[in-house]
Amino acid sequence: MNEKEIRKILKAVESGKASINDAFKRIKHLPYENLSFARVDHHRHIRQGIPEVLFAEGKRVEDVIAIARSLYKRSRKLLITKASQEIHGSLKIRNAVFFPASRIILVNGEKKKKGSVLVLSAGTSDIPIAEEAAVTASFLGSRIETVYDVGVAGLHRLMGTRTSLDSARVIIVVAGMEGALPSVVGGLVDKPIIAVPTSIGYGTSLKGLTALFAMLNSCVPGIAVMNIDNGFGAGCLAHKINMV
Amino acid sequence: MNEKEIRKILKAVESGKASINDAFKRIKHLPYENLSFARVDHHRHIRQGIPEVLFAEGKRVEDVIAIARSLYKRSRKLLITKASQEIHGSLKIRNAVFFPASRIILVNGEKKKKGSVLVLSAGTSDIPIAEEAAVTASFLGSRIETVYDVGVAGLHRLMGTRTSLDSARVIIVVAGMEGALPSVVGGLVDKPIIAVPTSIGYGTSLKGLTALFAMLNSCVPGIAVMNIDNGFGAGCLAHKINMV
Amino acid sequence: MNEKEIRKILKAVESGKASINDAFKRIKHLPYENLSFARVDHHRHIRQGIPEVLFAEGKRVEDVIAIARSLYKRSRKLLITKASQEIHGSLKIRNAVFFPASRIILVNGEKKKKGSVLVLSAGTSDIPIAEEAAVTASFLGSRIETVYDVGVAGLHRLMGTRTSLDSARVIIVVAGMEGALPSVVGGLVDKPIIAVPTSIGYGTSLKGLTALFAMLNSCVPGIAVMNIDNGFGAGCLAHKINMV
Amino acid sequence: MNEKEIRKILKAVESGKASINDAFKRIKHLPYENLSFARVDHHRHIRQGIPEVLFAEGKRVEDVIAIARSLYKRSRKLLITKASQEIHGSLKIRNAVFFPASRIILVNGEKKKKGSVLVLSAGTSDIPIAEEAAVTASFLGSRIETVYDVGVAGLHRLMGTRTSLDSARVIIVVAGMEGALPSVVGGLVDKPIIAVPTSIGYGTSLKGLTALFAMLNSCVPGIAVMNIDNGFGAGCLAHKINMV
Amino acid sequence: MNEKEIRKILKAVESGKASINDAFKRIKHLPYENLSFARVDHHRHIRQGIPEVLFAEGKRVEDVIAIARSLYKRSRKLLITKASQEIHGSLKIRNAVFFPASRIILVNGEKKKKGSVLVLSAGTSDIPIAEEAAVTASFLGSRIETVYDVGVAGLHRLMGTRTSLDSARVIIVVAGMEGALPSVVGGLVDKPIIAVPTSIGYGTSLKGLTALFAMLNSCVPGIAVMNIDNGFGAGCLAHKINMV
Amino acid sequence: MNEKEIRKILKAVESGKASINDAFKRIKHLPYENLSFARVDHHRHIRQGIPEVLFAEGKRVEDVIAIARSLYKRSRKLLITKASQEIHGSLKIRNAVFFPASRIILVNGEKKKKGSVLVLSAGTSDIPIAEEAAVTASFLGSRIETVYDVGVAGLHRLMGTRTSLDSARVIIVVAGMEGALPSVVGGLVDKPIIAVPTSIGYGTSLKGLTALFAMLNSCVPGIAVMNIDNGFGAGCLAHKINMV
Amino acid sequence: MNEKEIRKILKAVESGKASINDAFKRIKHLPYENLSFARVDHHRHIRQGIPEVLFAEGKRVEDVIAIARSLYKRSRKLLITKASQEIHGSLKIRNAVFFPASRIILVNGEKKKKGSVLVLSAGTSDIPIAEEAAVTASFLGSRIETVYDVGVAGLHRLMGTRTSLDSARVIIVVAGMEGALPSVVGGLVDKPIIAVPTSIGYGTSLKGLTALFAMLNSCVPGIAVMNIDNGFGAGCLAHKINMV
Amino acid sequence: MNEKEIRKILKAVESGKASINDAFKRIKHLPYENLSFARVDHHRHIRQGIPEVLFAEGKRVEDVIAIARSLYKRSRKLLITKASQEIHGSLKIRNAVFFPASRIILVNGEKKKKGSVLVLSAGTSDIPIAEEAAVTASFLGSRIETVYDVGVAGLHRLMGTRTSLDSARVIIVVAGMEGALPSVVGGLVDKPIIAVPTSIGYGTSLKGLTALFAMLNSCVPGIAVMNIDNGFGAGCLAHKINMV
Repeated sequence: MNEKEIRKILKAVESGKASINDAFKRIKHLPYENLSFARVDHHRHIRQGIPEVLFAEGKRVEDVIAIARSLYKRSRKLLITKASQEIHGSLKIRNAVFFPASRIILVNGEKKKKGSVLVLSAGTSDIPIAEEAAVTASFLGSRIETVYDVGVAGLHRLMGTRTSLDSARVIIVVAGMEGALPSVVGGLVDKPIIAVPTSIGYGTSLKGLTALFAMLNSCVPGIAVMNIDNGFGAGCLAHKINMV
Repeated sequence: MNEKEIRKILKAVESGKASINDAFKRIKHLPYENLSFARVDHHRHIRQGIPEVLFAEGKRVEDVIAIARSLYKRSRKLLITKASQEIHGSLKIRNAVFFPASRIILVNGEKKKKGSVLVLSAGTSDIPIAEEAAVTASFLGSRIETVYDVGVAGLHRLMGTRTSLDSARVIIVVAGMEGALPSVVGGLVDKPIIAVPTSIGYGTSLKGLTALFAMLNSCVPGIAVMNIDNGFGAGCLAHKINMV
Repeated sequence: MNEKEIRKILKAVESGKASINDAFKRIKHLPYENLSFARVDHHRHIRQGIPEVLFAEGKRVEDVIAIARSLYKRSRKLLITKASQEIHGSLKIRNAVFFPASRIILVNGEKKKKGSVLVLSAGTSDIPIAEEAAVTASFLGSRIETVYDVGVAGLHRLMGTRTSLDSARVIIVVAGMEGALPSVVGGLVDKPIIAVPTSIGYGTSLKGLTALFAMLNSCVPGIAVMNIDNGFGAGCLAHKINMV
Repeated sequence: MNEKEIRKILKAVESGKASINDAFKRIKHLPYENLSFARVDHHRHIRQGIPEVLFAEGKRVEDVIAIARSLYKRSRKLLITKASQEIHGSLKIRNAVFFPASRIILVNGEKKKKGSVLVLSAGTSDIPIAEEAAVTASFLGSRIETVYDVGVAGLHRLMGTRTSLDSARVIIVVAGMEGALPSVVGGLVDKPIIAVPTSIGYGTSLKGLTALFAMLNSCVPGIAVMNIDNGFGAGCLAHKINMV
Repeated sequence: MNEKEIRKILKAVESGKASINDAFKRIKHLPYENLSFARVDHHRHIRQGIPEVLFAEGKRVEDVIAIARSLYKRSRKLLITKASQEIHGSLKIRNAVFFPASRIILVNGEKKKKGSVLVLSAGTSDIPIAEEAAVTASFLGSRIETVYDVGVAGLHRLMGTRTSLDSARVIIVVAGMEGALPSVVGGLVDKPIIAVPTSIGYGTSLKGLTALFAMLNSCVPGIAVMNIDNGFGAGCLAHKINMV
Repeated sequence: MNEKEIRKILKAVESGKASINDAFKRIKHLPYENLSFARVDHHRHIRQGIPEVLFAEGKRVEDVIAIARSLYKRSRKLLITKASQEIHGSLKIRNAVFFPASRIILVNGEKKKKGSVLVLSAGTSDIPIAEEAAVTASFLGSRIETVYDVGVAGLHRLMGTRTSLDSARVIIVVAGMEGALPSVVGGLVDKPIIAVPTSIGYGTSLKGLTALFAMLNSCVPGIAVMNIDNGFGAGCLAHKINMV
Repeated sequence: MNEKEIRKILKAVESGKASINDAFKRIKHLPYENLSFARVDHHRHIRQGIPEVLFAEGKRVEDVIAIARSLYKRSRKLLITKASQEIHGSLKIRNAVFFPASRIILVNGEKKKKGSVLVLSAGTSDIPIAEEAAVTASFLGSRIETVYDVGVAGLHRLMGTRTSLDSARVIIVVAGMEGALPSVVGGLVDKPIIAVPTSIGYGTSLKGLTALFAMLNSCVPGIAVMNIDNGFGAGCLAHKINMV
Repeated sequence: MNEKEIRKILKAVESGKASINDAFKRIKHLPYENLSFARVDHHRHIRQGIPEVLFAEGKRVEDVIAIARSLYKRSRKLLITKASQEIHGSLKIRNAVFFPASRIILVNGEKKKKGSVLVLSAGTSDIPIAEEAAVTASFLGSRIETVYDVGVAGLHRLMGTRTSLDSARVIIVVAGMEGALPSVVGGLVDKPIIAVPTSIGYGTSLKGLTALFAMLNSCVPGIAVMNIDNGFGAGCLAHKINMV
């Protein structure tokens, strides 16, 4: 252990067995290990609140189960994204809730909800990604409100959410196809907006690239954009902003 | 002339100089020329109103001048798209007006304006393409109204055009960047909408491809989409629809 | 209800219970709701004829059934696009006809057919999309004629449709592969043409992008282009133009 | 003015000159104008701090000058992005500072600086975009710290900024080429990170698309991504988050 | 029938029942039908040898069977490309041979083989497309030689085919991955070369686009390039050149 | 010289100075040089008629002049593609003709013209590339006919070229924008067609990629496709086919 | 055999049966065969160590089995990449080990391991490709060390591998998503680095293109990049460098 | 200074002023600074030989001059890539040699040349990039041989380089257009090959992407690929491999 080594060097100095020069040289050559153990502590602090999240896509079911149980044991909290019915069935953790559309498994999560994050979706097909964002931010400790199916082709629906728009600290806007909703919302409020393009659409939607590019080109300055279908990322960012 | 030939064959039949079999064979072998003369007449009818249009891009100035004068002589009308100050200077046709932003030269045009075409632009940078569409449709004989700078980031500006939206028979919507305006307009009216993406934007606007793809993916069904920066095409289509 | 609120304010003014200043302030703060109720009426008018259409792709069968029945109840008309045999089997609405190639379910539709929309397809593989366009426009109330398999490699087949070309008010041209048919048709007539690229082809057809781009670059000015495989959109636009 | 109109209607009701039914109908037909005047006020609030920003790209110098002076007159503040030496020369506003690399013209800006925004750049070539972000956020009222040239190929340089990383509320990371810096920074802190890809690089950098896509795919969840070279947008978002 | 109509008109002229003017007008209005019947004859001539080819991809089995039998009845020859075991099983035409890798069904074909077409493949995975080209050209009447697995990574294999290279009139080169073989072959001979890219490869092979683009950029001038995996087209072109 | 070496070895064997074993070993180790001198002869044969062609793009003027003069000295023939006025001015070879649009410099060329190559262009903007193809094939010894501006939007113009279509052995079709002309020509004749996409067009023409992809996806089987703007390659291939 | 032929010619010269001129001509016409036999020997040397590798993708199971057994018989070593459980089950070679994640079948391999190749993976999902690289290099005779899951979001994990980094002669870095790890490793060591992008990621990872492009744009000069998921190629290159 | 801090802590331990526990805690919190000073030393070692390289693209001339002089002062060696005549003119360092085609400025460089790096170019237009690679590797201390213009269309030229191929330790292959040369070279030798795609070509060469993708898809396993036109990177990697 690095801790041991440093303590040994310090003891040698204390006991006069090592000169300061010698001790300095030995400490100087330990930077990486040094960093290594430092980072473990620091790391835990950094990722405070997110360590219990597991991305299941492309992992074997048995591996997911093993990691999930180990994570759960530590904190009695757990969030698995891109999960499956099969994982949920094999997990055997009480209170584990499975959201089939969003493919999320949730166990407990932060109890005290703070601040306010509003999650909007343009269409009904965008709801799974919106839900992924909402569950994530809620799991991390943000208070959540969701309003779905308020796409730009029927502005009156969006206008009906005015109170929600006004009371949120951060707004997540989930939209596929032409990805126009973040621009319209951005014209109505002056708070941070997180845009999540979805792969909903066909032909020139290019599996979400068109919505992504449209959001990056919004005529409203300063919209935060996520990767396609990345509801989880949006939830994390919203929570971080909400906690600023 | 083909007409002469056919008449000659018919006369030969009438006068008994040719058998029906011989005459049939000769006529049978004329299909292309046949089509050719038919098409000349038909063609003139088809393109009624558009023959005096000249696309100047990639042509040498002297060639443009020569064709333009010849076109003008026939009908005393002329429209040159993607023109230049230099062409305008050398053209020497009275009444020739040059629109520098849109790079159009206009001489006369249809005097009687019919119906009603509304041309909207999202930003001020989109105005040259919008103007190209407006001048084209007007040249062909459509009555035109233009409202510029009504992008989605400030919906109240668009809302202020409600009377115009209601009274138009066809609406041309010109927008760059995220190309969201046609969807919003399409949610407000039930008449034909022609969307023109522009190359305004940078980075992921991909020189207009993003706006184009967004318009093709509009959540409003049935929006007609043009090539990038193709104001001329939008003017032609709007006029054709206006004349239905 | 908003109407009630405004009437209440007006009554208060009428009865002297509220000053004009107070009444003004209260009305001023209602814009969205105001818009909202306005839009409801307006909206119904706008989408007149299209409200009974349901896009089934990516929705769960039970949800599609539920929405479909609710839509059908309102108007005894229904159109489901991108449907499936399974949906048709579970729908249990009399007269519901399923078009397997086009994946459309049709119930009734507008009885009075007006005007004239011609639907052409380049190849036999393009027929499902052409049929989607034709069924849609017919459902909305347009009189429809369809001519299939008239691609550019055999011009004589197209030439045989001359009467149809001449009598239509709007023409929908459906083509995959090189997408050349709209240009050729556009050289023969002077009426609005709606081009629908299909994903038919392989290799550099790029799932329809090549046909799409070819149509947007047509040497015939003013062709309206739809998203890839968007027969439904073409049917909507054709109907709107047919009704101008 | 709409206000006048509504007051007139209310007066007519008060004076008994108009029935409630008539008054209601007249008010009902004003929703857009209603919204319009509402939005003017609201809009000013929304965009509080940003109205004096002008995007000069693609606008004629004389137009930029005219708009800039009008904006400046209102608030004695002004920010012009993508400006030029020529614009600066013609502007004739005292205190106007031109940043040639970032192509920004700054006049005054918010005096009270709040919170803390850290701006990092990976390379020296990324500095103009980083500076654009920093000037923007500062103009809007955020306290700014900048550390440049801390790319991932020399981690020790980044490690030397630890105090800055720890004290910032929001971090903007500007990087071209492989765009790796935001991921590394994201592994060190748990605060909101805004990643700005630049067009620095050649070949497969694809004018910044590679850096953009890399940032959107970061293994650190919840990084906010901007369009390529969009330092201005990053400055706006950082300020909004800083003000939450 | 058009022939009948024209003969009727001619008879009317002959018998004096129609004036030349009337007859001319009636003939003038028949151009398309005129073309139509002309094209039928001409068309048969044009496509001489190819009419019995059927593209099965994307067609229902029962439709393929029906068309195939009708084609076969006319000429006792048949070629079905992109076919399946199922089609072959249901076809019930004696002598029908199925090539499973190339997915071709062949019945008879031109008996007299003329000229000489050499078909090379770079790898063993390219053989199905090479075989498709070879079977097609042979079916149309070209004499065929095939040499497979002579890719550029082992030049000695290619060098061993020198006699074949020298005696062929046309050479088809089928290659996936980096698509380099046509350039090397083109450096060795001065006869027409037809390059067929295949979708063999992964990652940046981009499903054959890389091989396609490489072939179009060959440093050997004048190589004819086909669409990806288009062995059939290569066979047709080789036969046409072989017959010049 | 290798020839010398081999003769020396053979002489040594003849005179008994070298054993067969020694001679064999020495010859065995010469394969490359062996190939080398063989290839020189063979190479000359292979490229018969093409050795005097020089591609000037990206080469310095002085280098082009030097190589050009050396090539010219050998055969008194010369073709420089992608040349410039400056090169022509400095070349100082009598009879050198410069084609400014096609950027070709031609000196003499094969005098005896054989066979027949028809070159068609869709638009007038495609003429430079068509001319490049025509001059190349003519230089190599093919008899050339050119017909320009016969695009698909006016089929009657194409129909007027029927005699030319029928008498050619090979047809080069040059087209930009949607690239539809090769398909239409391919439906009319059964001879080899070489399609050359041009970079004419804008927006989704993608600098010629759309025309290229459309041609590769032609519904007419067996069209030979060239790289974008590669008139020179088309001329080479046409000549090779013409000489088969 | 060519050797025989040459010896025969030499004998004829020796015995005076052939003149030097005749002998020269006959030898001159043998270049390719000459090359051919030269290349056989050379070739064996060149590919020394790699001949027993078989790429199974896209080949039929029975073919793979046949080739594999033949390869194995020659050298009692065998490596099959992109294999399957089914192939392993049918192979019936003792000691054949199947790596299911990497889809490799290994039989024996070089016993003496030399030098030192370090294989790093950024995430756990990248392990199959890393393992493919490691197994390949080991099979060819390189000593291998593997360290997995040391992505840039947790630098301390990477720092913990310092001894491994320092002792390796070549380092393979396997990473998907944003592909940043090679740049960070490249900043820590001055030895050859081979970067392998994987298709891990979604949305803008573009199936590995983003990681590939990021690696090609690394700010660390001189990183060797492989095709997406090409662990086998990385193993080959690492071994070649390790053996320099 | 960190050194000071650590010495202070050690002194406090030595003098008994601090307990080991306290000292440990204070050292534990210094990891970054620790790393920082460690890395400076280490870093110098790492980049040994490359520190004097400066990338001039996109930097202002005066900045380049300043950095260059500072670099030169340290080691009397200097390499500037993507330089210009103007920089060379202003540099005023004796012995500075400017390579105009490669845009490199070289001052001195490693005197002792070791090992052997062979640089091949496919065409004459690829020479500037090949020269950039050669000058770089030579500057770093590798012995260099260059052979240019040995493209695949004339294999005999490549075959003439056999001795060079055999004697090199590493081979750099520079090629544009179809990028086929690395595959052919890779079939002839079993040593590390570094492929550099160039942007030479037009149309579907896509500014070098096609050559890049072709090289990544080479049928020869284990070719190291560089970014487009990245001769500098190839020189660095070749030197690193040469020094293994």
